Amino acid sequence: MKKSTKQLCTALVSLGIGLGAASSSFAQQSLKDVMQARGLTQKDLLAAAKTYTPTGGRDEYLAFSSGGQSGHVIVYGIPSMRILKYIGVFTPEPWQGYGFDDESKAILAQGKINGKLINYGDTHHPAFSETEGEYNGKYLFINDKANPRIAVIDLHDFETKQIVVNPFMKSDHGGAFVTPNTEYVMEASQYAAPVSGDYVPLEEFNEKYRGALTYWKFDMKKGQIQPDQSFTFELPPYSQDLSDAGKGPSMGWGFTNSFCSERYVGGIERGRPPFEAGCSQKDTDFLHVTNWTKAAELVAAGKVHKVNGAYQITMKQAVKEGLLYLIPEPKSPHGVDVSPDGTHIIVSGKLDSHAWVYSWDKIKKAIDSKKFESHDPYGIPIISMKDTLHTQVQVGLGPLHTQYDSKECVVYTSIYVDSMVTKWDYCKGKVLDQLHIHYNIGHLVSMEGDSVSPDGKYLVSLNKLAIDRFNPVGPLHPQNHQLIDISGDKMQLLYDMPLPLGEPHYVVAIKADKLKPAVRYKSGWDSRTNKKSPWATRAGREKVVRKDGVVHVYGTVIRSHITPEIIEVEEGETVSIHLTNLERAEDETHGFAMYSQNVNLSIEPGKTVSATFLADKAGVYPYYCTEFCSALHLEMQGYLLVKPKGYVAKAGAKIEEGQKYTKADFDKQVKTNVDTQAVINSVVGFITSHNYKDFPEVVALVEDATDQLGFADEAKKKAEGYAAKGDFQNATLWAGQHWQYQVKTADLGLRAKTFLEEHGAVKVEAKK
Amino acid sequence: MKKSTKQLCTALVSLGIGLGAASSSFAQQSLKDVMQARGLTQKDLLAAAKTYTPTGGRDEYLAFSSGGQSGHVIVYGIPSMRILKYIGVFTPEPWQGYGFDDESKAILAQGKINGKLINYGDTHHPAFSETEGEYNGKYLFINDKANPRIAVIDLHDFETKQIVVNPFMKSDHGGAFVTPNTEYVMEASQYAAPVSGDYVPLEEFNEKYRGALTYWKFDMKKGQIQPDQSFTFELPPYSQDLSDAGKGPSMGWGFTNSFCSERYVGGIERGRPPFEAGCSQKDTDFLHVTNWTKAAELVAAGKVHKVNGAYQITMKQAVKEGLLYLIPEPKSPHGVDVSPDGTHIIVSGKLDSHAWVYSWDKIKKAIDSKKFESHDPYGIPIISMKDTLHTQVQVGLGPLHTQYDSKECVVYTSIYVDSMVTKWDYCKGKVLDQLHIHYNIGHLVSMEGDSVSPDGKYLVSLNKLAIDRFNPVGPLHPQNHQLIDISGDKMQLLYDMPLPLGEPHYVVAIKADKLKPAVRYKSGWDSRTNKKSPWATRAGREKVVRKDGVVHVYGTVIRSHITPEIIEVEEGETVSIHLTNLERAEDETHGFAMYSQNVNLSIEPGKTVSATFLADKAGVYPYYCTEFCSALHLEMQGYLLVKPKGYVAKAGAKIEEGQKYTKADFDKQVKTNVDTQAVINSVVGFITSHNYKDFPEVVALVEDATDQLGFADEAKKKAEGYAAKGDFQNATLWAGQHWQYQVKTADLGLRAKTFLEEHGAVKVEAKK
Repeated sequence: MKKSTKQLCTALVSLGIGLGAASSSFAQQSLKDVMQARGLTQKDLLAAAKTYTPTGGRDEYLAFSSGGQSGHVIVYGIPSMRILKYIGVFTPEPWQGYGFDDESKAILAQGKINGKLINYGDTHHPAFSETEGEYNGKYLFINDKANPRIAVIDLHDFETKQIVVNPFMKSDHGGAFVTPNTEYVMEASQYAAPVSGDYVPLEEFNEKYRGALTYWKFDMKKGQIQPDQSFTFELPPYSQDLSDAGKGPSMGWGFTNSFCSERYVGGIERGRPPFEAGCSQKDTDFLHVTNWTKAAELVAAGKVHKVNGAYQITMKQAVKEGLLYLIPEPKSPHGVDVSPDGTHIIVSGKLDSHAWVYSWDKIKKAIDSKKFESHDPYGIPIISMKDTLHTQVQVGLGPLHTQYDSKECVVYTSIYVDSMVTKWDYCKGKVLDQLHIHYNIGHLVSMEGDSVSPDGKYLVSLNKLAIDRFNPVGPLHPQNHQLIDISGDKMQLLYDMPLPLGEPHYVVAIKADKLKPAVRYKSGWDSRTNKKSPWATRAGREKVVRKDGVVHVYGTVIRSHITPEIIEVEEGETVSIHLTNLERAEDETHGFAMYSQNVNLSIEPGKTVSATFLADKAGVYPYYCTEFCSALHLEMQGYLLVKPKGYVAKAGAKIEEGQKYTKADFDKQVKTNVDTQAVINSVVGFITSHNYKDFPEVVALVEDATDQLGFADEAKKKAEGYAAKGDFQNATLWAGQHWQYQVKTADLGLRAKTFLEEHGAVKVEAKK
Repeated sequence: MKKSTKQLCTALVSLGIGLGAASSSFAQQSLKDVMQARGLTQKDLLAAAKTYTPTGGRDEYLAFSSGGQSGHVIVYGIPSMRILKYIGVFTPEPWQGYGFDDESKAILAQGKINGKLINYGDTHHPAFSETEGEYNGKYLFINDKANPRIAVIDLHDFETKQIVVNPFMKSDHGGAFVTPNTEYVMEASQYAAPVSGDYVPLEEFNEKYRGALTYWKFDMKKGQIQPDQSFTFELPPYSQDLSDAGKGPSMGWGFTNSFCSERYVGGIERGRPPFEAGCSQKDTDFLHVTNWTKAAELVAAGKVHKVNGAYQITMKQAVKEGLLYLIPEPKSPHGVDVSPDGTHIIVSGKLDSHAWVYSWDKIKKAIDSKKFESHDPYGIPIISMKDTLHTQVQVGLGPLHTQYDSKECVVYTSIYVDSMVTKWDYCKGKVLDQLHIHYNIGHLVSMEGDSVSPDGKYLVSLNKLAIDRFNPVGPLHPQNHQLIDISGDKMQLLYDMPLPLGEPHYVVAIKADKLKPAVRYKSGWDSRTNKKSPWATRAGREKVVRKDGVVHVYGTVIRSHITPEIIEVEEGETVSIHLTNLERAEDETHGFAMYSQNVNLSIEPGKTVSATFLADKAGVYPYYCTEFCSALHLEMQGYLLVKPKGYVAKAGAKIEEGQKYTKADFDKQVKTNVDTQAVINSVVGFITSHNYKDFPEVVALVEDATDQLGFADEAKKKAEGYAAKGDFQNATLWAGQHWQYQVKTADLGLRAKTFLEEHGAVKVEAKK
């Protein structure tokens, strides 16, 4: 019956060689027939050619989208519009182990409010870290509107590393936005609330409810926000909205708009007109202009007081020091977008049909000459619109956000009510083109469109619930991101991408080659603290240590076993399992799930993660690797045994093996192993006789195969040791394990060989 | 300054009409240039044409994929390979409000184990409900391997409706699979464990650890699994794996395979060879053959005892009654796949290089004639391989799963180690074609490939961690689903799709037109119980009721306000907010999030959902709509005020409005409203002068617009009432609200008008 193993070896050789030919033939088929059958026009075909990315192809840009109330950040490629990753940020996500391992639980715990763990977030506006106004590809920031927080995501491994809770706010729509060297991350409150956190009746709204704008200090080297160096502007109880940082001539200043400067409080249930009526009554709201450079100097000089444990610049102090100004802006605006050169600021009122272009030069002149038209009820100077406006352009009904092109003066504004994108010239104040989208656009993004040097090329329109663009999937529809080609004079719609999870608000897109993500961690790495883990364990050093009432299991994972395979504890003990992934191969992520204990880990190569839980009920708890890591993946298993308190094992009990092996079994296995080794040798021969060192992918596979072969040798020695002692049960099992390592080696070898064949490797002369 | 409103009205007219022309021009560009610039071959272009789906296009098939340890089900279209939805199943998902509203929390609570809420699942194998072996498009079932459970998803609204916990298992890899009329859903255990749930030492593994196979009774009318009519086979402590149900001649029988029939227990930390060695030593494992028809009869006849509160057919009873047989199958198999006509069963051993084809006819003959080669240690009859095998075919190294083509005898098998798909003929036992994939395929799926009438056409290869197919996104890589055209003689690779979240195992694909998802709920609907909600609230009937220590808020949401806008409770009170979405428009889902309380709801049109929480700290808690539902979405807000215990309000305190309005303000607003109404009338004129009733999409928009106009009238009356009393504050605000409704009406009207223009509506004669 062992003939199947022989056939396997034959297969190793025959299939490994035979395949190149089989896959190279490709049936001829008429493009015209396909177009006709699928109802495609020439225009469709051109759009297909502009977006279709063949296997192994790379995207030119990576887009990072907020996930809205899913609490994630979503990463997709442009122009292929394929979603590459959902990054867990404010919401636990088990595939990544986020919020399941102790290390990431600590990140989520940073985001507690009033001592309460929040298990979701409403992410809105992602922002890349910048150096001199250019995206530097190092970090991404994003806010949580519902529970005002900012998260820091490391683009080295696409993981969330920090969450900070705003000490003054009870909602934040306007975050995150960064200053040109990521000196600060801006976060603005939305719905006014008491600064104190206590109950304050709405009757005291004007006096005690406040808005706020926080400048979070960021340390690029540490990759961490520094709350103790951050400061917050106290603002009037308007609903502050989005922000943008000045650059070039406006460097050092920030711009934050607002709606509901009427300070209206609804109450439709008590006969009052609703918020929507009272908050949209005035023709203008206020653009807030803040001087963060000077504010930082005041903080550094010890001139700013702490409230709620953090620096707060009161309105009084801000006015006195000349840090805060207001400018009327179009009714209920959404976006405020500074031009790449920092000279202009575009604001659109969503209940207006115009985009308003402000001149920084004019604003600065008014500030310098203290030319104000009045003051708001809180004493903040108001600069007049006419003293600051460059132009107003009629762009369509319900304009929201503006993104910049690489072409001078060219911008794109999303038009909500008209469901379109308007391309226009903000210098000349002239509409250039308009394109319908489906339907009801919110934000839009051009490539590196809010940096100092936008790339143009593509634009993505972020459309709301796509009721009729895709196959229906129930009452909750996907959103629709439409890719638009903006390289020519006229915008061209290329692609409709459904968002399967979440409700994105804003996207930022970066040139893909600016990102250099890692593919593995240093061995024994805590990815959340970005340090060697205190729980890191090396191969052969696995152990169980009871300390301070906790059972610490120092374990390892490697294809295809978890060490330890049996863990024994007593009912009532707290168990802390620390697992290090010993693999270096980049596709050898292992998982770890355990029955009924909410234990679910993702352990990428090199990572060390921990799961701590109370073994509160005696019983048997299987655990296993959740990632399809190898052919023997299903056998990568173990048992946690929770014994009743005071349990005494029966004397002399032994695990009785269901299957007994003899010398004949051992000899048969050894013969199989010899045959398999011959196959491996032939594959190795093929590889080493070719210029494999010219292919880094193959070098990695060969290194991994060599590792596996090393393990194989160890198993072989064990088998031979037992055989010498006449223990053919263990001898046969270890010989079997030897073969398992051989199969893993062969897997890698075959992949390397195929790669060489497919990539035109050439024979090299044997060394003399 | 109110001129902006006028301009808005002008825009309503000019833009609404002018756009058709603007978007119709499309720059000419050479396809050849694009191909050259992007490095596309003719073959790539053909693949692009076969997959690219222009805006508004529909996919031919919908694929439902497990999300692995993400705990979701993932829905995507074929051939566009666009992901349409992640359905929350075992893991809370805030975008859908799943696990956040009380109604869906009740579903997740059904899945508690030992009283503990499990906050993730490891989903593996989805299965559609069937009628006579055909997918009927009604329900989808999926398992949780880590915490053995089965979930029922309703394809009417793509929501999870039920979770059942297996009373006998501690892991289940082999679920879900259905019988041909969905009489039962099959679930098989994986890692053996004590039946009792108590601690049993591993030394008693052979005697007290057991496998199991549950047949869950399903009621198609109720859409619910009926645990009290379900039954479970006690099985030997082998690691049972996947199952498939017989059909046609094999109707009434089930097939379940296994690995580790060695009954090996590892323990590498104590010097024992690991599980992977001991579980892969024997050349064969066992295919379990079970007779569920006869088993159901025994249950109905009251002849089966209950254990753990559920029917358990012991091995002894199963053997005695002729319900259970074993057949040797190739070493460590993965898939067991019954042919569409029910005559053959294909099993592949992942450590073999062959697929084995069994003949049901031969199996049945052996059973009927009681021809057994031996019995296993538990007394179960073993039918010999040679008495049952039709043929063995060398398909490649590490064969796993097999899917059927529409062409007779043609199948596709995934080949793990060789990373390829083998197309072969199981009647003649002949390999037809082989195609390399990238890399390491697990499952694969052909269109309706496990139904009685597979469609062929496409095949999707489910590949593991895609290390080099896409832009890198950190150490945790996406999976890769590769779309393959199988319509011709040779397989053709069409598309690589990354999976951004989760680790799918199996996918099932259904003809899209079999699904008829709803786009809205009946008003006041509890979607989880599929009944009218006891908390449903109609417009104008919102109220707050204190009962049994709970503050019940009966509220409503409609663009753009939440009623109530102010909720007042006392510290320490439990608050239960019940919200009904009053909208009928299918894209008017509203959300509801509240500061720091873990309250986050998704309220699709018609739905009623609830959030219950303890108001444990006095303070101010803003809440708002999370879905970008309308232009005034940000203003859709409110405050929960939690007063300190015993708080006494200051006498005579009143909300002081930040902005005062006069008769002049009122008159100006009224004039705006009159102007806006003129615009609306002109749009209405356009619509009603065309054959809009021929377009259901437009009819829906018109109905919605008419609704909004009704609200506008109510606001107008209120405004006029206040004006008559000389209260110009309230008059102006209500006049403003009137205008808000007009804007919403105009939004809908413009969409309807654009739709008519784009879809060739024609003028109709006015009625006489």
